[in-house]
Amino acid sequence: MTKQNLLDCHQRITPFVHNTAVLTSRLIDKEIGAQIFFKCENFQRAGAYKIRGATNAILQLSEEQKKNGVVTHSSGNFAQALSLAAKSVGVTAHIVMPNTAPEVKKVGVREYGGNIYECEPTVEARQAMADEIATKTGATFVHPSNDNDVILGQGTAALELLQKQPDLDFIFCPVGGGGLIAGSSLAVKYFGENCKVYGAEPFEADDAYRSLLSGKIESNETTNTIADGLKTMLGDKNFPIIKELVSGIVRITEDEIVESMKLVWERMKIIIEPSSAVTVAAVIKQAKESPEVFQNKKIGIVISGGNVDLSKLPF
Amino acid sequence: MTKQNLLDCHQRITPFVHNTAVLTSRLIDKEIGAQIFFKCENFQRAGAYKIRGATNAILQLSEEQKKNGVVTHSSGNFAQALSLAAKSVGVTAHIVMPNTAPEVKKVGVREYGGNIYECEPTVEARQAMADEIATKTGATFVHPSNDNDVILGQGTAALELLQKQPDLDFIFCPVGGGGLIAGSSLAVKYFGENCKVYGAEPFEADDAYRSLLSGKIESNETTNTIADGLKTMLGDKNFPIIKELVSGIVRITEDEIVESMKLVWERMKIIIEPSSAVTVAAVIKQAKESPEVFQNKKIGIVISGGNVDLSKLPF
Repeated sequence: MTKQNLLDCHQRITPFVHNTAVLTSRLIDKEIGAQIFFKCENFQRAGAYKIRGATNAILQLSEEQKKNGVVTHSSGNFAQALSLAAKSVGVTAHIVMPNTAPEVKKVGVREYGGNIYECEPTVEARQAMADEIATKTGATFVHPSNDNDVILGQGTAALELLQKQPDLDFIFCPVGGGGLIAGSSLAVKYFGENCKVYGAEPFEADDAYRSLLSGKIESNETTNTIADGLKTMLGDKNFPIIKELVSGIVRITEDEIVESMKLVWERMKIIIEPSSAVTVAAVIKQAKESPEVFQNKKIGIVISGGNVDLSKLPF
Repeated sequence: MTKQNLLDCHQRITPFVHNTAVLTSRLIDKEIGAQIFFKCENFQRAGAYKIRGATNAILQLSEEQKKNGVVTHSSGNFAQALSLAAKSVGVTAHIVMPNTAPEVKKVGVREYGGNIYECEPTVEARQAMADEIATKTGATFVHPSNDNDVILGQGTAALELLQKQPDLDFIFCPVGGGGLIAGSSLAVKYFGENCKVYGAEPFEADDAYRSLLSGKIESNETTNTIADGLKTMLGDKNFPIIKELVSGIVRITEDEIVESMKLVWERMKIIIEPSSAVTVAAVIKQAKESPEVFQNKKIGIVISGGNVDLSKLPF
């Protein structure tokens, strides 16, 4: 995946996605002792960065493929994103969702015209049902994170952030399936000026942290985390990129996730979902543990989404 | 209060306040059938538009007056605003707050260095305690809404909105003490092009609605509303402006407030307080009741603030 691939992808999806705002907060900068730039994908269409990769993947289909629709499995944000992206170009979207997915995300999928199929909340059950639908309908399977077109699409958020703020010293992303951080790493490789990429992950779903240590893709035995977007595991397409380009992964406790979520809601008056709060928590934690490394630096945070079930808040 | 007064005020306070973002939402526009422009004072310093009027009032004090400090009474947002504005210029702020004020607002006042004095939640109790402090300390009383300098300051939010979007057909504001809507009306009078101003108020604190009907300032016997910022009554300085320039006031039920708050949180991913949700609800209600009047019009909404106690949400 070249610099030109990334630029072409950005141009391709630009008519269909928002170039979201980059926000700052004096209060949070003061607390952290660095300048933070929040790339607000919570303001993105369908409430998360996922529409970028979904749109890119669908725009790359042949006319023949478009007729048969697309199918994916997703805990929620990619589900909404693929439904909306498919709707924009008149394609049918089949969406396999774990039966534990937040109600607000199911409602979103239905509103965007996606057909929901519920399954058990395991990686195996999701894939099996998606395969079955693909076989029955002829729909093209679009993986939410382990797909080169999706990875490139997700990288355009960091690309836009670097276009606005080229002198970032660090970019922090959450790590779920690995599509966002792989794409962001490519954006940083091609457009950063001496910028390092860090990932953020809950202790309760720290498969990417362990994968980087062992050198092979690890899975989670349990995923008891509020960050419902980060329960999935890495794939063979994004893991090599992550291994090569990511400087480290910071692990975060559930309490730290809720605290950071509250901090951003209260101070910045924006709604971020737990998966994004993990990333904010990682910056706060690193700044506390290594203040000399972050002092007066410019740090980009990809706020991945804002889809929260308001009837189930942790406050 | 002339056009030049308003422009001078804006120039005076500009170094101390944010020119906040004006956001739009395709989904909400579609639902309402009009173009809505949200002037996001929830992103303002101290989380509400109140810093505008507070800053203007303090910057107009003599050096002698500054030495003796300022005193006010407020249910919360003006309390934080005056504390922060006073701190910026090294002035002491004495803040009388009803003992029912949200904890998050008290914390804010303390963080900004204001000295809190709690009183019973009645208009009389507030004023009595503020008078007592003024007598004791020599502090200058700054009324949160019934003060010409405050009214001008609050009008700068609508001024900025009209500078960005001069062709608005309507501007909606919440009505509590009347400072914001009076100031906004002046901004519309001097800078609008055939623009009408509407107020929004809970049924549970509809004193302004009744005041416009009777032609004299009415008070509320009870104020059982979630919109804690709108419990106060109009004053002799802002009421004549409101009577002259406001086209009408829309009353909103408590359920409608919560629904609109949820709509904005979920769809726009921004945190607005109940007093601002009242205003959004008013636009939705008017658009439903008189679709022909609002169809394809451009409507500005002053989102007054985002200070919410996350431990006491109505969802």
